[in-house]
Amino acid sequence: MFENGREAREAIREGRWTGPTAGLAPGYTQANLVILPEKLAFDFLRFCIRNPKPCPLLDVTSPGSPHPDRSWAADADLRTDLPRYRLYRDGQLVAELSNLLDLWREDLVAFLLGCSFTFERALQSAGLPVRHLACGCNVPMYRTNRLTRAAGPFHGPLVVSMRPIPAAQVAQAVQITARYPAVHGAPVHIGEPEALGIADLGRPDYGDPVPIEPGEVPVFWACGVTPQAVALAARIPYMITHAPGHMFITDRLDEHLAAF
Amino acid sequence: MFENGREAREAIREGRWTGPTAGLAPGYTQANLVILPEKLAFDFLRFCIRNPKPCPLLDVTSPGSPHPDRSWAADADLRTDLPRYRLYRDGQLVAELSNLLDLWREDLVAFLLGCSFTFERALQSAGLPVRHLACGCNVPMYRTNRLTRAAGPFHGPLVVSMRPIPAAQVAQAVQITARYPAVHGAPVHIGEPEALGIADLGRPDYGDPVPIEPGEVPVFWACGVTPQAVALAARIPYMITHAPGHMFITDRLDEHLAAF
Repeated sequence: MFENGREAREAIREGRWTGPTAGLAPGYTQANLVILPEKLAFDFLRFCIRNPKPCPLLDVTSPGSPHPDRSWAADADLRTDLPRYRLYRDGQLVAELSNLLDLWREDLVAFLLGCSFTFERALQSAGLPVRHLACGCNVPMYRTNRLTRAAGPFHGPLVVSMRPIPAAQVAQAVQITARYPAVHGAPVHIGEPEALGIADLGRPDYGDPVPIEPGEVPVFWACGVTPQAVALAARIPYMITHAPGHMFITDRLDEHLAAF
Repeated sequence: MFENGREAREAIREGRWTGPTAGLAPGYTQANLVILPEKLAFDFLRFCIRNPKPCPLLDVTSPGSPHPDRSWAADADLRTDLPRYRLYRDGQLVAELSNLLDLWREDLVAFLLGCSFTFERALQSAGLPVRHLACGCNVPMYRTNRLTRAAGPFHGPLVVSMRPIPAAQVAQAVQITARYPAVHGAPVHIGEPEALGIADLGRPDYGDPVPIEPGEVPVFWACGVTPQAVALAARIPYMITHAPGHMFITDRLDEHLAAF
């Protein structure tokens, strides 16, 4: 545990922390990372703007700069300040790395996207269950029959995450997460998984299945896996992301995102 | 008055409507238009993402395409569907035009940005005063001492609009406008104009002064003039915008933006 985002980033940069980042600097917003060559960056940016629920953009660097805006993280370096990275070529995972110092190029653009850690913390604070956290597993995620809005080469299905919520608390779950549009916002679908093209909640496309108790409704949120899944489906020649669960920790408090 | 956004756009395209668009298709969201050459578009896009309150992006076209995403407006053409346009060269206004058919180029990118018409309608629906509408004049706007976050060549001061609100209704004005982050959202400053560097509310930098009654507080919202003011200050070689008050009318209802 660290006091704040800056201390966590320093520990990661110096190799003192190499594991997943969940709970590492409680209250500080964590972000997904996507890095693309400049010639694809504009289309990806347009894709995110057309699909703000799965792809909530927090910041975009200028080409060649690994530094996010100071309002998100002061003196940060996206080449060193995450514990683990993944390199994809032509839509295939080719390497996992602990830093990007050797890989960085003058034509790379880094995108920070909102992460559901922020709204899960808000749900827990309000006493709502977050089943996969209680189970100690990954959230279940599903490819749906809903298409994203395309931009350039980026197109594909919306991916959703699912959290079972007691029927009497579903409206509260909507109200709480709607306060955080920068981290996926309100659910995109409540109940009726078949209508999303999900045949079996017990067999997620990503992550782990979780039990749904009697009286609970499956609630579906737009998922941050969508932009990665879409970029991979588009067989992007060169892309770097954070490794799952190994996020970028910012200087902003989760509560700031509720008044973003 | 037209029934919906599509009918209003058709009337404008066919030259049957050439005036300002306020109230033209009640309930349908109107948008600001900015058009820039592709080589500046990425930096402008990053500028908007770093400054979401003054620059709430609704859509961005692909280079050369004058067509916004169908989810915003079906079968729309940004070259013909606004009543009046302005052409700027090197930061100077050089022409006002009724369409862009002769000017359109394959390297142009169009940006649609949220417009305060949407939240003013919500304020009025809740019974709050919107003074400049009652006075039949333009909203007063002020350059402030707050800087926007820079991106590439785009930098400069935040511009705010001001609406006087009775002290007992200021909190309500915050709550109502906070529901609409896609059209500037909650105020950026309440009371104390000196702290924003505004010496005299009676002398706005843009628009018209409005009376502030006893018991009212000046409430300041981030203003859509900011991106235009910043682009002009950066002496952008080539830029097209809508003419003031002559907006693009979409197919989306204002109420949709409250759950964007």
